[in-house]
Amino acid sequence: MLASPSTCQPPGGSMTTTALPLTPDYDAWPVESRIKHVESTPRLVTVHWSDGVISRYHSIWLRENAADDTTVNPATRERILDLSTLPAWPEIAYAQIDTHGALCIDFMPEERRLRFHPGWLRAHDYDNVCDNNAADGEAPLVPVTTWRGGPGSAPDTLDASGLLDTSPGAEAEEAVLAPALESLLGKGLVRLRNLPTEPGSLQSIANRIGPLRPTNFGELFDVRAKPDPDSNAYTAIALPPHVDLPTREYQPGLQCLHCLENSVAGGEAVMLDGFAVAEALRQRHPEAYTTLTRVRWRFANTSRSTDYVWHAPMIRQDARGELLEVRIADFLRGPLQATFEEVEPAYEALMALQHLLREPGFAIRFSYQPGDLVIFDNRRLLHARDAFEGDSGHRWLQGCYLERDEVRSRYRMILRARRQRRLLDSATS
Amino acid sequence: MLASPSTCQPPGGSMTTTALPLTPDYDAWPVESRIKHVESTPRLVTVHWSDGVISRYHSIWLRENAADDTTVNPATRERILDLSTLPAWPEIAYAQIDTHGALCIDFMPEERRLRFHPGWLRAHDYDNVCDNNAADGEAPLVPVTTWRGGPGSAPDTLDASGLLDTSPGAEAEEAVLAPALESLLGKGLVRLRNLPTEPGSLQSIANRIGPLRPTNFGELFDVRAKPDPDSNAYTAIALPPHVDLPTREYQPGLQCLHCLENSVAGGEAVMLDGFAVAEALRQRHPEAYTTLTRVRWRFANTSRSTDYVWHAPMIRQDARGELLEVRIADFLRGPLQATFEEVEPAYEALMALQHLLREPGFAIRFSYQPGDLVIFDNRRLLHARDAFEGDSGHRWLQGCYLERDEVRSRYRMILRARRQRRLLDSATS
Repeated sequence: MLASPSTCQPPGGSMTTTALPLTPDYDAWPVESRIKHVESTPRLVTVHWSDGVISRYHSIWLRENAADDTTVNPATRERILDLSTLPAWPEIAYAQIDTHGALCIDFMPEERRLRFHPGWLRAHDYDNVCDNNAADGEAPLVPVTTWRGGPGSAPDTLDASGLLDTSPGAEAEEAVLAPALESLLGKGLVRLRNLPTEPGSLQSIANRIGPLRPTNFGELFDVRAKPDPDSNAYTAIALPPHVDLPTREYQPGLQCLHCLENSVAGGEAVMLDGFAVAEALRQRHPEAYTTLTRVRWRFANTSRSTDYVWHAPMIRQDARGELLEVRIADFLRGPLQATFEEVEPAYEALMALQHLLREPGFAIRFSYQPGDLVIFDNRRLLHARDAFEGDSGHRWLQGCYLERDEVRSRYRMILRARRQRRLLDSATS
Repeated sequence: MLASPSTCQPPGGSMTTTALPLTPDYDAWPVESRIKHVESTPRLVTVHWSDGVISRYHSIWLRENAADDTTVNPATRERILDLSTLPAWPEIAYAQIDTHGALCIDFMPEERRLRFHPGWLRAHDYDNVCDNNAADGEAPLVPVTTWRGGPGSAPDTLDASGLLDTSPGAEAEEAVLAPALESLLGKGLVRLRNLPTEPGSLQSIANRIGPLRPTNFGELFDVRAKPDPDSNAYTAIALPPHVDLPTREYQPGLQCLHCLENSVAGGEAVMLDGFAVAEALRQRHPEAYTTLTRVRWRFANTSRSTDYVWHAPMIRQDARGELLEVRIADFLRGPLQATFEEVEPAYEALMALQHLLREPGFAIRFSYQPGDLVIFDNRRLLHARDAFEGDSGHRWLQGCYLERDEVRSRYRMILRARRQRRLLDSATS
């Protein structure tokens, strides 16, 4: 006898999505296409959708991703099923569409009947969406576009004056955050303007995205000329294009620099798309590019109380040659430890890169205004600054790091809220 | 004319290491072997050491790693030289041993004379140390050894009762921290006993290693059965072997679990070496192993306010097949998004792994005592727990994450302190 058969045969009622069983997560899955027809073999269900798309799902995939409370803990929405404890490979005895429009399957040998939400099912249509060329099973949240700078260029800039007065998660917050996160995800860079200039306010601004990642430099760090500096950043000298903390196994994904004061002569900020520079290197000096994807440089930052070392290539790409990360910071490289034969080619490649980094066509240049917050992808962008005259005024930036995970989570929450509003609108219209 | 020739011809004096120029970092480099003889060509210096070793150094490598203040900012010990601004590829006009035993080189066309500390030079002997098989240019700080558990096994355990009374960096702290960090680096696991049981004390204990990595679960998180849990960890149910936060681009490198109370029936802790399990899979089910290094599973953790997703293989190895990371957590996997052909083999491989994970021979099992702190490598070890009876008593662990960078930095500082003491001892003896 099948367990709880009633879930597939509810007592009448019209086809609505809200009456459907829970999906295995907290998201909303509007139904844009209905299941028209379904066929099955023991290990496969073929779904024919009302818009003509045909999607195949494996029995084992369906079994593991069911939303009932023998599969998912209803309190946490986390899986509790251990597949290897099933009596055998789950097979399909019978598949049908129930009166709510859900896919309803009887699994054997468990004798368990489980239902699948059509909106959720269509959103996870791996049969039509995935191909071997995709870096992973989902398209990027925002398409990545490389960019060049040059005279007159500027970062995407948004007025964020009311941001701290909005409620977290409200539509008013979304009006600033959504385009900011889109610039960050797509171009790796965004500038917010007209924010408070109180020291420490960066903490609450950055928390609108997610928790900070503290380092040995603290939770917030002060970028200004200091006595007894423990970083070149804390002097008035020029800094060449670099990422921060390449000395870590995983350099922070995101950096925020918030301007509190800026009245010095000099100290102009420079931002470059490291992916654009790497692509140019690949085109103009393919051998240098390959060398920099292979040679593991030693990145090191020693201070009186800490000693960070990590070995990694300056350019990291995936198996298909897509750029994943740049790790460039001349002042944070320790002595290269490579084979004897590798050393001269490594330095030749490095110099080819250094010449490219100085080409003005890659750089966006700007001066910080108090209240500006520049957020950038620290595994893709390079930042630099001109020297400034320390006695000509004050230049004070506060900075912090976050993980890129937080940007994606926050942006997915915005998309989820939009789906939920769409679902509500369609239910009330 | 060469710049500052006097640095190579000091006014007499015996050969001491302390009178040598600064090395390009904060470390101490005891001189265990003297430079006996040196030869050079424009692009190469060959150093003959007193113990018979012969090391070659490239001119460009030497030039970039000089310690003078045109190369390194003396205040921060960070590089200020930009190689690409040199007039030409640096060449060697002349190389000699100075009266302090340092290597002294005249560089052309710069006309600059620079000195190299023999202890530092020998410690960076890439010519003899590096080969193409090394994962990076330096041996691991502590050799990695995989391990199995089984009946009677226990984690390396240390009495840490006085830890919080020691001064940070003192030898008394080192007496506890050094062996703890060695177990962590080598086996991925250590247990400290007899620590305070005050809530929040984990913060100051963990800070003895480095700054914490906060997440959406907070800086410290409480592992106990809670109303309205947002994770299976916060219930009384059993947890299968898993890593924490596989849903992040970079799952935290280190996890600390600190027991404040434990009087429940059940809830025994289980620890497995994920690398040992992966090696066993490679031996017994090579196809499953290969599949799990290739298929990018979807790890997902949705809550009411966050939505983390990351796609990654369960086993990550380097080009030579050395294990880098495991990412396993059934309850934090979302629906697999892979090509249609990949889905069934992926699940077959997963089930082979799940059967191995249940073999008791891999597991160290133990009960937490109040005052225990278990620290483990969250990218290598898997942890699990039995279900417990929530109404039989109290079970309260506090947890936090750190990065593995902090363990290595802390351990390098201990090695540095030992080198400095050795240097002092030899200077006073």
